[in-house]
Amino acid sequence: MKILIIGANGTIGKKVSEALSDKHEIIKVGKTSGEIQTDIAEASSIEEMFEKAGKVDAVVCIAGDAKWDKFDKLSEEDFYIGIKSKLMGQVNLVRIGRKYLNPGGSFTLTTGILADHPVDKTTSAAMVNGGIHSFVKAAALELENGHRINAVSADLVEDAKEKYEDYFPGHTPVPMYKVADAYKKSVLGKVNGEIIRILA
Amino acid sequence: MKILIIGANGTIGKKVSEALSDKHEIIKVGKTSGEIQTDIAEASSIEEMFEKAGKVDAVVCIAGDAKWDKFDKLSEEDFYIGIKSKLMGQVNLVRIGRKYLNPGGSFTLTTGILADHPVDKTTSAAMVNGGIHSFVKAAALELENGHRINAVSADLVEDAKEKYEDYFPGHTPVPMYKVADAYKKSVLGKVNGEIIRILA
Repeated sequence: MKILIIGANGTIGKKVSEALSDKHEIIKVGKTSGEIQTDIAEASSIEEMFEKAGKVDAVVCIAGDAKWDKFDKLSEEDFYIGIKSKLMGQVNLVRIGRKYLNPGGSFTLTTGILADHPVDKTTSAAMVNGGIHSFVKAAALELENGHRINAVSADLVEDAKEKYEDYFPGHTPVPMYKVADAYKKSVLGKVNGEIIRILA
Repeated sequence: MKILIIGANGTIGKKVSEALSDKHEIIKVGKTSGEIQTDIAEASSIEEMFEKAGKVDAVVCIAGDAKWDKFDKLSEEDFYIGIKSKLMGQVNLVRIGRKYLNPGGSFTLTTGILADHPVDKTTSAAMVNGGIHSFVKAAALELENGHRINAVSADLVEDAKEKYEDYFPGHTPVPMYKVADAYKKSVLGKVNGEIIRILA
């Protein structure tokens, strides 16, 4: 299986790439690293990435930014950072990627616990995650050629514990093997239109 | 209680305005009708509306557009119709409205069944509804001065049955009194950070 992983060098992306690379061909994509570079906030950049990658059997996105700050500090423009990147970036990946996905292929997007259980300073980040959840359910009704789509929504992950634990008081970090398993379930399994929620 | 209702002349807005007007002062807002006009897709128009309305005790939004079409017909720009109007329109209403909301006041936003149970042609509409659900939960953690925020998410409503029933096969229409009750629960009750889901 030829698997395109966007964000392959990120905290989660590294472990997912490792977990899938023993039996599959991985094309690593990053904003500045990887075999192909893309900025998912730009539709034209997504199109170029797929032109370089060619036809694939699975698209995994573990990328996308959103601004974290107190609600009373976030400007309208701040909200659009997440909208353009993590929200519409992932939507565009599916819109554009359908043409490059082989029959029976899958899209796996990434959200996070904030969609269901936000914490302080995440009005924007929670919003884009929640938007993707509903988008995934809706898109699954319409995708053709046996294409599937799912989202992985993990709680605070073990490898990001140091960086994020102060934002997530009381959240037990999810072991990385469980996170990688969630992506395997989506890519290698048959599930479709699911939000794969991962807790410790 | 002084209640600002945006979309007061819409299908749901009419019934909500009626239900609340016996004991409360209602300021009706519409895009082209009502005592005050606003287009929630423009932050400056929202600001002007609040300047005209002055301080209020509750803000109810039953407005916001999104484009309905097959996923393979929706362009990136089409998705931005819903993002600018129903998604960021409602977010901006809270961002800007906080300054005009009396202590203990509330925001009641409107989403719909699509967030949880999308139907054909609703990748964009479902997405904006899902985004609002997570936003409401996140904003409730941060609002100050006793402000509350909720969203009402109804299934196909009785008064929109003729217009929308073909999109919602098998959805039993919700009687309008139940819809109005949901808004009453948010405006007059104490609930906060809730998605008030209404089925027939």
